[in-house]
Amino acid sequence: MSLSLLCPDAFLSPLEIDQAVARALAEDLGRAGDVTSTATIPADARAHACVVARKSGVMSGLPLVVAAFKKLAPEIEITAHARDGAAVAARIVVMDVAGPARAVLGAERVALNLLGRLSGVATATHEFVRRVEGTRTRICCTRKTTPGLRALEKYAVRCGGGFNHRFGLDDAILIKDNHIAVAGGIRAVLERAKACAGHLVKIEIEVDNLAQLEEVLAVGLADAVLLDNMSIDDMRKAVAMVAGRVPLEASGGITLDTIAAVASTGVDYASSGSITHSAPSLDVALDIEI
Amino acid sequence: MSLSLLCPDAFLSPLEIDQAVARALAEDLGRAGDVTSTATIPADARAHACVVARKSGVMSGLPLVVAAFKKLAPEIEITAHARDGAAVAARIVVMDVAGPARAVLGAERVALNLLGRLSGVATATHEFVRRVEGTRTRICCTRKTTPGLRALEKYAVRCGGGFNHRFGLDDAILIKDNHIAVAGGIRAVLERAKACAGHLVKIEIEVDNLAQLEEVLAVGLADAVLLDNMSIDDMRKAVAMVAGRVPLEASGGITLDTIAAVASTGVDYASSGSITHSAPSLDVALDIEI
Amino acid sequence: MSLSLLCPDAFLSPLEIDQAVARALAEDLGRAGDVTSTATIPADARAHACVVARKSGVMSGLPLVVAAFKKLAPEIEITAHARDGAAVAARIVVMDVAGPARAVLGAERVALNLLGRLSGVATATHEFVRRVEGTRTRICCTRKTTPGLRALEKYAVRCGGGFNHRFGLDDAILIKDNHIAVAGGIRAVLERAKACAGHLVKIEIEVDNLAQLEEVLAVGLADAVLLDNMSIDDMRKAVAMVAGRVPLEASGGITLDTIAAVASTGVDYASSGSITHSAPSLDVALDIEI
Amino acid sequence: MSLSLLCPDAFLSPLEIDQAVARALAEDLGRAGDVTSTATIPADARAHACVVARKSGVMSGLPLVVAAFKKLAPEIEITAHARDGAAVAARIVVMDVAGPARAVLGAERVALNLLGRLSGVATATHEFVRRVEGTRTRICCTRKTTPGLRALEKYAVRCGGGFNHRFGLDDAILIKDNHIAVAGGIRAVLERAKACAGHLVKIEIEVDNLAQLEEVLAVGLADAVLLDNMSIDDMRKAVAMVAGRVPLEASGGITLDTIAAVASTGVDYASSGSITHSAPSLDVALDIEI
Amino acid sequence: MSLSLLCPDAFLSPLEIDQAVARALAEDLGRAGDVTSTATIPADARAHACVVARKSGVMSGLPLVVAAFKKLAPEIEITAHARDGAAVAARIVVMDVAGPARAVLGAERVALNLLGRLSGVATATHEFVRRVEGTRTRICCTRKTTPGLRALEKYAVRCGGGFNHRFGLDDAILIKDNHIAVAGGIRAVLERAKACAGHLVKIEIEVDNLAQLEEVLAVGLADAVLLDNMSIDDMRKAVAMVAGRVPLEASGGITLDTIAAVASTGVDYASSGSITHSAPSLDVALDIEI
Amino acid sequence: MSLSLLCPDAFLSPLEIDQAVARALAEDLGRAGDVTSTATIPADARAHACVVARKSGVMSGLPLVVAAFKKLAPEIEITAHARDGAAVAARIVVMDVAGPARAVLGAERVALNLLGRLSGVATATHEFVRRVEGTRTRICCTRKTTPGLRALEKYAVRCGGGFNHRFGLDDAILIKDNHIAVAGGIRAVLERAKACAGHLVKIEIEVDNLAQLEEVLAVGLADAVLLDNMSIDDMRKAVAMVAGRVPLEASGGITLDTIAAVASTGVDYASSGSITHSAPSLDVALDIEI
Repeated sequence: MSLSLLCPDAFLSPLEIDQAVARALAEDLGRAGDVTSTATIPADARAHACVVARKSGVMSGLPLVVAAFKKLAPEIEITAHARDGAAVAARIVVMDVAGPARAVLGAERVALNLLGRLSGVATATHEFVRRVEGTRTRICCTRKTTPGLRALEKYAVRCGGGFNHRFGLDDAILIKDNHIAVAGGIRAVLERAKACAGHLVKIEIEVDNLAQLEEVLAVGLADAVLLDNMSIDDMRKAVAMVAGRVPLEASGGITLDTIAAVASTGVDYASSGSITHSAPSLDVALDIEI
Repeated sequence: MSLSLLCPDAFLSPLEIDQAVARALAEDLGRAGDVTSTATIPADARAHACVVARKSGVMSGLPLVVAAFKKLAPEIEITAHARDGAAVAARIVVMDVAGPARAVLGAERVALNLLGRLSGVATATHEFVRRVEGTRTRICCTRKTTPGLRALEKYAVRCGGGFNHRFGLDDAILIKDNHIAVAGGIRAVLERAKACAGHLVKIEIEVDNLAQLEEVLAVGLADAVLLDNMSIDDMRKAVAMVAGRVPLEASGGITLDTIAAVASTGVDYASSGSITHSAPSLDVALDIEI
Repeated sequence: MSLSLLCPDAFLSPLEIDQAVARALAEDLGRAGDVTSTATIPADARAHACVVARKSGVMSGLPLVVAAFKKLAPEIEITAHARDGAAVAARIVVMDVAGPARAVLGAERVALNLLGRLSGVATATHEFVRRVEGTRTRICCTRKTTPGLRALEKYAVRCGGGFNHRFGLDDAILIKDNHIAVAGGIRAVLERAKACAGHLVKIEIEVDNLAQLEEVLAVGLADAVLLDNMSIDDMRKAVAMVAGRVPLEASGGITLDTIAAVASTGVDYASSGSITHSAPSLDVALDIEI
Repeated sequence: MSLSLLCPDAFLSPLEIDQAVARALAEDLGRAGDVTSTATIPADARAHACVVARKSGVMSGLPLVVAAFKKLAPEIEITAHARDGAAVAARIVVMDVAGPARAVLGAERVALNLLGRLSGVATATHEFVRRVEGTRTRICCTRKTTPGLRALEKYAVRCGGGFNHRFGLDDAILIKDNHIAVAGGIRAVLERAKACAGHLVKIEIEVDNLAQLEEVLAVGLADAVLLDNMSIDDMRKAVAMVAGRVPLEASGGITLDTIAAVASTGVDYASSGSITHSAPSLDVALDIEI
Repeated sequence: MSLSLLCPDAFLSPLEIDQAVARALAEDLGRAGDVTSTATIPADARAHACVVARKSGVMSGLPLVVAAFKKLAPEIEITAHARDGAAVAARIVVMDVAGPARAVLGAERVALNLLGRLSGVATATHEFVRRVEGTRTRICCTRKTTPGLRALEKYAVRCGGGFNHRFGLDDAILIKDNHIAVAGGIRAVLERAKACAGHLVKIEIEVDNLAQLEEVLAVGLADAVLLDNMSIDDMRKAVAMVAGRVPLEASGGITLDTIAAVASTGVDYASSGSITHSAPSLDVALDIEI
Repeated sequence: MSLSLLCPDAFLSPLEIDQAVARALAEDLGRAGDVTSTATIPADARAHACVVARKSGVMSGLPLVVAAFKKLAPEIEITAHARDGAAVAARIVVMDVAGPARAVLGAERVALNLLGRLSGVATATHEFVRRVEGTRTRICCTRKTTPGLRALEKYAVRCGGGFNHRFGLDDAILIKDNHIAVAGGIRAVLERAKACAGHLVKIEIEVDNLAQLEEVLAVGLADAVLLDNMSIDDMRKAVAMVAGRVPLEASGGITLDTIAAVASTGVDYASSGSITHSAPSLDVALDIEI
C-alpha cells in the first residue's frame, strides 16, 4: 500500500509523510499512550474498522492514514477503496482496517485528523476548480498554509485539482511592491533579480495596475506576472495587453463567488489562500467493531 | 517581550513556541532562504512594519510573532499594542516591528500564518463563548486539532475564552462505546478504569442515552459524563437527573446555531471540534515600509 | 514480541520505547561502533545468549531489550520467559536471544542498562507495595525521576505494583505552599485553580497541618489532598476528618521502615521519590555463547 | 556563569549540557507547561530561591542548574557559592536564584533532578575515593550508566574524584572472554586487535586467572589488563607478576566494604558499576520566597 | 557580525548555518569535549587568534566560522577583514578572534573544516569563472554535492561567482533520457511535464544530439535545454539553431582545460559537478596566541 | 545485505549509516520529492539499474547505497558484486538494483553522491597505502574531515587500507604547541595530562624538533609522538633516537610525492588531511533501464 499506488501523481516526498505522522502520533500519545484502551481493552483483542467519509468530498491523505496505523502496529491490514484525488460521496467507506484493537484505537484520531485536514483542503480546492471548468484558468495555492503542514497541504491542493505556487521563499522569485520600491523601479528590480537567479528559477512580479504591467512587459524579464487585487475589468485588459506572452496570475481576495468572473477574464492562474488557511476539515470517521 | 507578559494566563510550554516557530521558518526559508529579498534588498536596509488585524477578532499567537522575527534577527525591535486574548477591531495595529529589512520580510509569512491560524481558533472559540454568556456552560475543545499544532491550538482556545479537554490520549481517561462493549458494560469498564488510574487522572465516560447515564450515576466512579449526540430535551433531563453530582459535557455536532439551546439545558461543558479543525484563519497582515 | 504482549497493562507510548532505545544505542555505539567485536569476531559468527536476573526482583523493560537487539539486527530471534511485572527469582533466565554475534554483543550493555534500571525501579516499588498489602494504601511515585527517563520510570513503577502521580507539570494541578501564599490563602488559590482548570484536570493541594486540611475541606474544590511531612498521628486524624470525602496522599520522607505505619493510618496514597531517584539497578546479565 | 568556571576541569562537551537540560524541561513541562503556577502566580511576580544541599555530599551538575533556569528565563540571576567537585556539608546553600516566579517554579524540579542525580554519582564515587586515599589505586567507572545520561554521569564520576573508563564501545578496545574464545586464544585476539587498532586506541584485556595474565604479559600487546572477579590474594600476585609493566584494573563486585582490601593489593584501578547505576540521588532542594 | 553583512548576497537560509555548525561541533566535541585543552589550559586563560588563508583563494564560510566560535562562547569577539566572495592572497589574515582559550581551541577545527571546504568550492568555481570571463557563459553547479552540505556548497558556488542549478529533485523539472523513453518521446514527455508543473517551476530537458534539440524546439515547452556530452562543434551548432529562444546548458565532463572552448560556443551555462564533489579544501589555519 | 557482510571489518556504527542516508535523502527530495519522475514515469513502472564504477578505485559506501534505495522502497532488490574495501577496475558493475522506477530514480543521486565521496576517500587513501607497501609505515587520517561526515570518512579511510587517528577532541589527548606553552613546558604538560587521563585514553604529543623529542622521551609519559613538519633527515634521526620505545607519527604537508621518502625513515604512522578533505569523488554512475 505504497504512496505511489494510493496517489499516482503525488508530488510529495515520502519522508514528509513519515515525519508528519510520527509527530502527530507523538503529540497524541504523549507520555503514557492511550490510557483508556490500555485500561479497558485486552492486549490481544482485535478490531475491524472502516474509514468513512461522512460528507462528500475529495480524498487526500490516505497514505498518511496507512502510515499512522502501521506505525503503531506493522501487522495491521489495510484495504483501500479509494485513492487520493478521488471524489467520494457521503457515507462511502474508503478504507478497511483490521488488527490489534489497541493500535486501531490508538491511531484513530491521528489518522482522522490528517485525513480530515488534507481532504478538507482538497475539497475546498476542488470547489474552486469546478467553477473554472471550461476556462483556461488554473486554481493555485499560496504560502498561506498551516505552519508545519505546507508540503502536505500543497499536495492536497493537487489532489483537489489545483496547482502549486512556490513551496517556500527559496524556490522561485516573487517580486512585490517593497522590492520594487527599494530596488528603484520595475526595470531595476527585474534586472537585479535576473542577474542573481539561476536558469532554473522563475521570476514572477506583482503589479497593481496596468501601467506597471506595461512596464513589466517592456522590460521582458519576468516569467509570470501577478495581478494584485485588480478589478475584473482590469484583469480583462491585462489579458489582452499580454496576449499570451507571459502567464498571468490573478490574486487577492478571490472567493467562490468571484472565481467564475475572474476566470472569465482569461487569466492563466487564480490563486487563493483560503483553500489552505481556511478550509474546513472534511468530516471523516472510523467505524470500529472489536 | 516574554510570553508571560503577552499572555498572562498562557497554559503553554515555552518550548512549544520555540519549536513551532523554528519548524515553520525552516519550512518557509527552505535551503536558499528568501531569494527575492536577498536579490533585491540591500543587506543594510531597514524596515518598519505594522502587524494589522484586517478583520476583527481575538488575538492569539503574538508571542510566536515575536519569536519568529527574533529568530531571524535578534536585534529586531517589537512593540506590542495588544495581548493574546484581547478582542481587537478591524484595522487595529497590534504590533510594531523595526529592524533589518531582509529579516522582516523573511519572517513575515511565518509570523502571519501562525498569528492568523491561532487567532482564527481564538476567534471561533469566542463566537461560541459569546453565545453562552450568562449560562453555566463552558465551551471546550476536543482532540480534533491540526496535526502538529495541538498545544498551540489548545492555547488559542483558552485565548478565546474556552476551556481545554484532554491534550492527548494520555492525560485523562475517556471511555467510549467500544471500551464499554469490550469491558462488558458500564460498571465493569468504570471499575477497571478506576483500578488502573492514578488519583490525579480524571475518568470521563460517554453515554448515548439516559438509561446509560443512570447506570453511570449508580456506579459512581466517573468524574465527568459526556452526553454524545443527545437531543436538547434529553440533555435537559440529564441535567435534572445528575443534579450537580458530576459535570456534564454535551458533545456531537454542536454549532453556532445550536449552542445557545445546548447551553440552556444547563450542561456544564459543550465541546466542539469545529473551533479547532475548521476555524478559518483570521485575516492579519504586515504593512511594511522600507 | 510486541509491547502489549510483554506487558499487558503498559501505560507507555510505544514511541517512548523506540526513542529511548535509539538514544541509548547511539550513546554506546558512538561513532565507530563496537570496535572490539568488529576486530575480533567474524561478521558471520552467530551467538546464543540468555538474559538472566542475577538477583530476584520485578521485571520491567523487557520490550526495550527486544527493541535494542532488533535495532541492530532485525533478524535476531528472541523468546521471552517472563513478562514485565513478573517477580522472578535469582538466576532465572528471562529471555533467550539468538542471532549475529556482533549485534548481540553490540546491544548487550544498552539492553542490560535499560532492563537493570527499570527493573530496579519496579523492584524498589514492589518492596513498598508488599509492606502495604492488606491496607487501603496505594504506593505512588513523584516527579523526582531520572531526567530523560520519566515515562519509562513511571511505567516501571506500575510494573512494580505502584500507581502514577503527575507525569509532568502540565497534566494535573498540584498546589503547594508558595502558590497558597501568593494567591492569598487556601480558598483563593483553590478558586483560582478551579476557574482555570478544564473538567479533565484534577486539583490536588498540599497541606502542612490539620487546620489547613480543615480549610481545604470547607472550600471543597480539591480532588485530592497531599499531607506534607505530617506525623503518623496527624495522618490518622486527617483520615478521620476527611472520612472518605477526598483521597489523601501522604508524602515526605517515607521509607521502607515507615511505610507500614503510614499505611496503618488509612491514607489512600503514599508517595515516595526514592523508588525512582534512588532505586539501585537490578543485577541482570547476558550469558553469551558464540 | 560558564561551565568552565563552575567546574574548571570539566571533561564534558557543553553541547551535552544543553541537550540534557532541554530534554528534561520538555519532559516536565509537557504540552501545557506549569499549569499550577500559571493559574495561581501572577505573570510579573518575582521569586528568590536558594539551592540547598540537604545532606552532605559532592556537588555535580551546577552548570546544568544554571542552564535549566536560564532556558525558561534568560534574565534569571544566579550566584553560585560552590563549584562542581566541591564537598559541601548538609544545609549549605550552593546557589542563589532570583527572577520571574513562574520560571523559577517551572524549572525547579528539572534543576533538582539533574543536580541530585549527578551529585549522587559524585558522592558515591567520592566515598570509594576516600577509602583508597594513600594507595596507588584510582577509582573508575564502567559503561553501566543510566541510559541517556552517560556523558553526564562520567563527568559526575570525575567530580567525585574518580576516573573514566570507556565512554562507549567505540573509543577503546576491551577484550572479554567471548572475544578470546572466538578469536582462538589470547595471542590471536591481541594480535588481531592490534592489527586493527589505530595508534590512539588503547587495548585492554580481561583475564580470569593468573595463567591468562601470564599469557597476556608474554604477548605484550595490551595497554591494560582487567582482573575479572579475582580474589584479593590473586590480585596481589598479579601486581607482583606485572611489576608495573602494564596498568592493572580490578573489577567485579567491588563494594565500599571490599575496596580498601582491593586497593591494598596495589592494583592501579578499581572499577565499580554501582557508583553510576545504583547511586542514590543526593537530597537537594530549592527554598523559595515569592 | 551577521550573515548579511559578511556576505551581502547570500542565498542561504540562516537556519542552515546554525544546523551545520551545531552538527559539526557535536561531531568533533563528542561526549567529553576537548579533553586536551581541559587538561592543560586553565579555565580562565584567554587566547587571541587569526584566521589565515595559507593559499590564495575565494572566501566562503566566514559566517559559519563566527557561528562556531560563538556557539562555544558567546562572548568571543570577532573582527572580520574579508567577506565571503572576496578573493584573498596567500597569508592574508581574514579574521581576528579573541576570547576564552578553551573555546577558541575547541571550535578551531570545526571552524577551519567548514571554511576550508566551502572556500575550496568557491575557489574551484572561481577558477572556472575566470576562464569564461568576457563570454556569455555562466558557470553553474549540479546536484553532485557532498551529502549533508548541499545548501552550503551551493552558497559557496555563488561566492565563487557561479550560479546554482536545482537545489533538489523538487524545485525544478529536469527531464533525462529515461523520462523521455518511458513517456514515449520528447513531445509526450514535455507535454506531460507541462501539464503537471505549476507556473513557478521551470522545465529543462536533456538532449544528446541536434535532432533531439530540434524536436525540443519544435515542441516549445522547455524553459532550458541541457546539451549532454556534446562535442564543441555540436554545441556551436546548437547555439546557432536555438538563436536565443531558450537558454542552453552544456554539461558532461567539462574541465578547466575544456571550459574555454565550451564557452566559446556561446552556450548560456556550463555546469560542472567537480566544483562541488571534487574541489580540494582551501588551506586555512588558525594562528593562536594564549 | 547487512553492513557486516558488505564490509566485514567496518568500524562504523550502523546508526551513522541510517542517519547519513536519511539526511541526504531529505536534502535531495526536499518538499515535493522527485517532481520530474512523478510527472513522467507511471507509478507502477519498474526499473533495473547497475551501479558502475566509471574509474578504477577502492569501494566504500556500498551499505549506504543499499540503505538509500531501501529507504524509498523497502522492496527494492539489490545484489552486490563487490564489498567495501575492494579495488575495482573501471567499468565494473558493483551492484544490481531492481524495483519501482520512481524509487530507483529518486534515490539515484543520493546513493551515488555517498558512494562517490566515500570511495574517493578510500581511493585516495589507497594511493598513499600503495606507496608505503613493504615499509613499517601506516597511513592514517586526521580530523580534517568534511563536516557532518567524519565517521563515514574515517570508515572510508579504513576501506582504503589506512588507519584512524582521533575521531574527535574527546577520545584521545593530542598535545600541541599551545598546550605546551601554557602548561609551562613538556614535562609539566605531560604530567598534567597523565594526571587527568583515564587508563584507556592515549596521550600523543607534537614536537617540532629533536630537542623536544628528547625531552618527551626523558619524561616518558607519552603513548605516541607526532613529528610536526620535520625534515626527512630529522625524521630519520627521530626514529633512531626513539628506537621503538614509542610510536612515531609524521605529519604536516605529506603528499603522494613525499610519502615514500617519509616512510623510508621508519616512522610508524604518516598522517595526511588531504585523503579526507581534498580527495576527489570517485566517478560512479547508475545505468538504468526502465
